[in-house]
Amino acid sequence: MHDEIINLIKTTTDLNSLRIQLNNYHQRDLAESFRLLDEDQQEKVYALFSNEELADIFSYLDAEDVSEITETISEEKLASIIQEMEPDDAADLLAEYSDDRVEMIYQFIDEDTKEEISELLEYEENTAGALMNSNYLVIEQGKDIKDLMKKLVKEAPDLESINTTFVVDANNQLLGTIPLKKVIMAKAPCPVESIMNPNFKAVNVDTPIEDAVNIVKNYDIFDLPVLESGQLKGIITIDDAMDTVVEEAEEDYAKLAGLTEAEEITESTFTSVKKRIPWLAFLLIMDLFVAVVISQYDYLFALDKMTVFVFFQPIILGLAGNFGTQSLAITIRKITDHEFDYRHRILKHLIKETALGLAMGLLLGGLALIFAVAFLYFNGQAWVDIWPIALVVALSVFASLTVSALFAALLPILLYKMKMDPAVASGPVITTIIDVLGVVIYLSLATVLVYNTLI
Amino acid sequence: MHDEIINLIKTTTDLNSLRIQLNNYHQRDLAESFRLLDEDQQEKVYALFSNEELADIFSYLDAEDVSEITETISEEKLASIIQEMEPDDAADLLAEYSDDRVEMIYQFIDEDTKEEISELLEYEENTAGALMNSNYLVIEQGKDIKDLMKKLVKEAPDLESINTTFVVDANNQLLGTIPLKKVIMAKAPCPVESIMNPNFKAVNVDTPIEDAVNIVKNYDIFDLPVLESGQLKGIITIDDAMDTVVEEAEEDYAKLAGLTEAEEITESTFTSVKKRIPWLAFLLIMDLFVAVVISQYDYLFALDKMTVFVFFQPIILGLAGNFGTQSLAITIRKITDHEFDYRHRILKHLIKETALGLAMGLLLGGLALIFAVAFLYFNGQAWVDIWPIALVVALSVFASLTVSALFAALLPILLYKMKMDPAVASGPVITTIIDVLGVVIYLSLATVLVYNTLI
Repeated sequence: MHDEIINLIKTTTDLNSLRIQLNNYHQRDLAESFRLLDEDQQEKVYALFSNEELADIFSYLDAEDVSEITETISEEKLASIIQEMEPDDAADLLAEYSDDRVEMIYQFIDEDTKEEISELLEYEENTAGALMNSNYLVIEQGKDIKDLMKKLVKEAPDLESINTTFVVDANNQLLGTIPLKKVIMAKAPCPVESIMNPNFKAVNVDTPIEDAVNIVKNYDIFDLPVLESGQLKGIITIDDAMDTVVEEAEEDYAKLAGLTEAEEITESTFTSVKKRIPWLAFLLIMDLFVAVVISQYDYLFALDKMTVFVFFQPIILGLAGNFGTQSLAITIRKITDHEFDYRHRILKHLIKETALGLAMGLLLGGLALIFAVAFLYFNGQAWVDIWPIALVVALSVFASLTVSALFAALLPILLYKMKMDPAVASGPVITTIIDVLGVVIYLSLATVLVYNTLI
Repeated sequence: MHDEIINLIKTTTDLNSLRIQLNNYHQRDLAESFRLLDEDQQEKVYALFSNEELADIFSYLDAEDVSEITETISEEKLASIIQEMEPDDAADLLAEYSDDRVEMIYQFIDEDTKEEISELLEYEENTAGALMNSNYLVIEQGKDIKDLMKKLVKEAPDLESINTTFVVDANNQLLGTIPLKKVIMAKAPCPVESIMNPNFKAVNVDTPIEDAVNIVKNYDIFDLPVLESGQLKGIITIDDAMDTVVEEAEEDYAKLAGLTEAEEITESTFTSVKKRIPWLAFLLIMDLFVAVVISQYDYLFALDKMTVFVFFQPIILGLAGNFGTQSLAITIRKITDHEFDYRHRILKHLIKETALGLAMGLLLGGLALIFAVAFLYFNGQAWVDIWPIALVVALSVFASLTVSALFAALLPILLYKMKMDPAVASGPVITTIIDVLGVVIYLSLATVLVYNTLI
């Protein structure tokens, strides 16, 4: 479809007919297509739409993408478009531009919009305050449902969401919420308080965004009120919450893979290198430490008969590392779901992970024993050597899996309880720590059970 | 809060007062708390609520969880509750019970509900048809906005969503959608067609669920119509789509960690073992293959001077494996976002990943060179040996990163284009394949650049 739109823009010379044809497409498809146009084509298309239409089209893209495709637009026109945007989107977009450009844009923005935007910018990133918008239907207590209907009809065109009406007192303290369904069913005369829900869910402006979107998701709330000292300051709509919930999931996913941030398709190789190198550089240093640990066992490899332990080393490291990543992923997911806000669940989780480590250690250790015996037999090893070597492999798998499970479950919970981001303990970190533990277990067992019987 | 509710249930003996107090909590909090009660307590509480109230409370839990906490309820009462549920939730719940129990429940369900449920059960799992619900406002063309308002007021109490009215012709073919905002603003007389949007987004009953929820997310659609040969069959609401989108993200996350499925907090250790062991057992076999590959180079380790290569092996495998996981995660994410439905983007992606591999290979290879030289120097190696060994390490890092990036990007795209689940190429699979490639590159270079100069 995007190819279709781009083609239309490239080939249609009659601007009037182009406009009519573009109107058959959804704004989001137009927005996506504009990302793929060159500057001249963008300029040509933008001239076709009113500022309000452009604001609407841009609302379907991330602020980052919008800042990219609006490079060709003059600051004056940009200011007019920004005035038509939702204040939260406008604030996000302005954060993407250079300080110089923002200053120039600000010259053309009226005072009301400026105030609305700067109010939103005051709230810290990743709080409910920064995600909320101020575009909702509010009514004072004491009014009748008739007044509400009048207000609704009058304000509806400009409102993003009419699903919920918020009832406040003279001090803007939120008293209750009325779903639109109840408004429609009510018959005048009927004071608004009599149909409002006084047991509404709400968050504060400084509630972490994660918690706010979790409430929207778990309680199926379409418009979540955001309060400051009980006063209604804004709402978080379910569609904005959905975008955020997806972003949060992508962040967790990226961190598990050892990326500092999710990557965009449009970004340069240089930007990607910056996102990928931190963990890998850290990993290199950690692996060097693993090398130092292994070198402590160099007496082992001086014996010809011991080189066989080199072959099995990837088994120990591979299994323990991957099992650790599994435990880590499960633990991080449960932290995100707030499962560990109850103390007894932490203990339960740790016991379960350890039990899992023991069970998986027995199963995979048993399998490893069989495989190692077969491998050594076909490799021409004498039977007298086979059993102790295979035993070292099996015991190491068992021990390293158990240690790995406990460790990968404990570390992120500790970080969380210390108010740090548990995802710092990302996949690469856990696996290298487990590498060190695994190597020590493996080579120590090899020393005790095999090397010491040979010398 | 759940502790509070559980405490109330345990300590309050006056049932009337308990009911009043429980009514102050949100249904979802009640549902969550019921999961933590024992059977006797559950029975006590369930007696307090009407079937309709229980259906409402249960609607906030997964079907799996509901089946767990309804074990104590008789089939007759369960049937009455199920009749009050949304048909899609009812169908999901019935799928959780044993065939015997379903048969007994069915005896108490009326024909209309049975038909609605069995219609939904006909659609394959993971299609839009299976997620949709049949609870929406529909109006025939030719009617006036006045008729629509009347219908709206009459049907609103029973409807899940009144955000969108669907306009159909006499054959139930969907002609357009009207957002509630426009209904409220319209003034009679006004035929419904004149305010409907004929360019609506819709999906088919057999559209994969992933694609359907992506449309809801990307286009901010509150009620997505689901069609069969153009006829309106149901809608997907944004709150249901949100739950699904989160589930999908969790599946991807689980697969990256090498889990066959996301784990639940309530499940037994045995169930978790079943979810975790497939990839690890596969990994063990793959690692045994790595052992076979390494054993082909056993002549290397027979020489005393060559044991130093054992120390550095985890660096090569660790870096290449983790870099591969990064590329894999990015590629899977882009596949999920349908970025690769355009052929030119595949090529662009592969070129970029290869460029990234080269860039990261140069950077990390350079770092590895410095670290290896330092390590060997402090380990007392002679200068004449240091450079060739460090060079092998650096070159191996460079080569294995490049190969790893290309491979981790190419494999999932190939799977996707072959209509297979790209996430089959999960973290553990990619890393072991890269392990094999890395070991071959590393030990071959060691043979050519060091071993051959020594013998």
